[in-house]
Amino acid sequence: MLDQGFVDKALESHRAVWTEYDGLRYVRFVDDYQGVCRGTAVFDNQVVYGYPSIGRVLALQSGLKGQFRAPFWMEEKVDGFNVRIFKLNHRILALTRGGFICPFTTDRIPDLMPSGVFEHEPGIVLCGEVVGPDNPYMEGSVPYIKEDVELFVFDIGAISQKQFMVYPEKESVITRYQLPSVRRFGRFELEDLPQISETLLQLNSEFREGVIFKEDSPRDHRAKYTTSNINIVDIEAGAYTMFDLPPEYFKNRIARLVLFLDEQGVSNTLALQQQLGTAYVRGLMEAIQQVHDHHKVFRTFRCRFRERENAVKLLEHLSDIGGHVQITLHELKEANGYWLLEFDKVFPKSSGTLGSLLKGSLLFD
Amino acid sequence: MLDQGFVDKALESHRAVWTEYDGLRYVRFVDDYQGVCRGTAVFDNQVVYGYPSIGRVLALQSGLKGQFRAPFWMEEKVDGFNVRIFKLNHRILALTRGGFICPFTTDRIPDLMPSGVFEHEPGIVLCGEVVGPDNPYMEGSVPYIKEDVELFVFDIGAISQKQFMVYPEKESVITRYQLPSVRRFGRFELEDLPQISETLLQLNSEFREGVIFKEDSPRDHRAKYTTSNINIVDIEAGAYTMFDLPPEYFKNRIARLVLFLDEQGVSNTLALQQQLGTAYVRGLMEAIQQVHDHHKVFRTFRCRFRERENAVKLLEHLSDIGGHVQITLHELKEANGYWLLEFDKVFPKSSGTLGSLLKGSLLFD
Repeated sequence: MLDQGFVDKALESHRAVWTEYDGLRYVRFVDDYQGVCRGTAVFDNQVVYGYPSIGRVLALQSGLKGQFRAPFWMEEKVDGFNVRIFKLNHRILALTRGGFICPFTTDRIPDLMPSGVFEHEPGIVLCGEVVGPDNPYMEGSVPYIKEDVELFVFDIGAISQKQFMVYPEKESVITRYQLPSVRRFGRFELEDLPQISETLLQLNSEFREGVIFKEDSPRDHRAKYTTSNINIVDIEAGAYTMFDLPPEYFKNRIARLVLFLDEQGVSNTLALQQQLGTAYVRGLMEAIQQVHDHHKVFRTFRCRFRERENAVKLLEHLSDIGGHVQITLHELKEANGYWLLEFDKVFPKSSGTLGSLLKGSLLFD
Repeated sequence: MLDQGFVDKALESHRAVWTEYDGLRYVRFVDDYQGVCRGTAVFDNQVVYGYPSIGRVLALQSGLKGQFRAPFWMEEKVDGFNVRIFKLNHRILALTRGGFICPFTTDRIPDLMPSGVFEHEPGIVLCGEVVGPDNPYMEGSVPYIKEDVELFVFDIGAISQKQFMVYPEKESVITRYQLPSVRRFGRFELEDLPQISETLLQLNSEFREGVIFKEDSPRDHRAKYTTSNINIVDIEAGAYTMFDLPPEYFKNRIARLVLFLDEQGVSNTLALQQQLGTAYVRGLMEAIQQVHDHHKVFRTFRCRFRERENAVKLLEHLSDIGGHVQITLHELKEANGYWLLEFDKVFPKSSGTLGSLLKGSLLFD
């Protein structure tokens, strides 16, 4: 448990803030603070620690060599949003990476996993990714999920503990309670590089994001490595809302893509170069077309809820966290036993900049 | 002439600084300040005003319609570095955009233009672009100059005056003194859009940068418009030193390129998309190769001088203004009546970031 004086200091220095969800008040860390991660949530009698950042290697061979002192596990990295699911008194709740209770994930927990696990293991924190086209946060989706969302667990922690469960124990809990999990490729050593590369090229050809390596040692050191194709997917999505994104968005992805090519020597490089150019042009052209047609750049999101009130809570939450992005409700209707929510995110900088450029205004750049 | 009190205030507020060149002390404006442009140079008895920024339109038709209230002149925009050439007492000097006296251009004035003009017109300021492969500032070059540099005049101002000469008078001075000038396409109105577009498509196919429009009216309003191909050239050059550039560098050029495509409907779009992707990949791959081979990212520059001491002054100047970019002398030798200077610019952020990524270090992005 975190010391009350420590939490008070974090609050005083604005590294943590009081947050409320459905009558529940808790302290949420908005930044890393003296060894406590951003996203950590402190409730009356329990702490759910934030999910720590995982560093990225852009060169596989030297990255593995430089980062790992012992054999390591390899798991698929899936492209969705990070959640931590846990039991608080009599409720099962899901926290987002930032430490907000997610009205969407919390509502859908019974669909995402067999929730009986918390009767037997009330003190665990399931860390996973929610992935799929019908989610309220992420544009685009993965090719292997055609509708709604799915959960993929990749770590199991415990209430008021920073450490994750050791790997074999995590696997045993996943199996015992039939928890949905990311693909686990097994335990590798540096000499297994050819096999690791082969897996990555396979993931790349399926437009899957990449992998996470987790050292099989008490320090549990981690690193991620992503495929080149996922960067092309991201660049097309990003070009669409280009002026609302930090400019590093593109720089980083270009660097990842080219370093992947440099090392893996992906054969059909010319085709890939064309895909990269096409991604930029198509993404931005689509946004221009929307400004021509609708005078704004927006994306439509759809997701489904078990309870109507959670959809309303989600809209409020998105408006609170969206910053300059505007949320517009389309409809909220009952269908097939769910509440279907449809809303737009309007990107004001992209709308404004493209609108003004298309009108012929001057840009001093 | 600027009021002494005004200059003192600019100095006090650090918008202007004292600068020295070869025993000559003057005040240089480092920022725009109360209507006086960055780059303005204040000497004892004369002021050379800074060259004002020209806004860019990214949509041609609406840009011309929105910006111009009268017919306008159209000139080619050439891709080099901006200079202002003028006579101070008995010397002819060249200022850079930032207001530094350029040791290279100043040295080469007799090769760049018939300098007799200043005997007849001692009070003029020739504003132009120095363009060509053998220049000390700009990477890459234009396809139409194969060696050394050339000067292209595009405006004529006067000592201690902000206004430029009116267009017909400028043309007459250029003709009378046979000054090298940018291509002048003539005087157009909005209805001439098809002809303007045709010229731009021609410039695009020749990988020329674009055009400047100048309103034929007392307010002399201006706008620039650039071609799509020049953005691809810039992106390849930029990808090479990606981590030393502001990230907006790429965003802006992608936006210009796609808006050009949107409006001009360049036919061979798939080829262009491939060129865009290729530019990114090739630029960054080259940098990676340099890090593999030389452990650093650098570019070699060559230029020639009439006087040896000016080459030395240039190296000092580049070190002063280069910020984090490092200058390394290769050689300075006499040949064919000139002093040939060869030096490297080493890009420390690109060298460091790529070096560290290739060694397998972790990136938290």
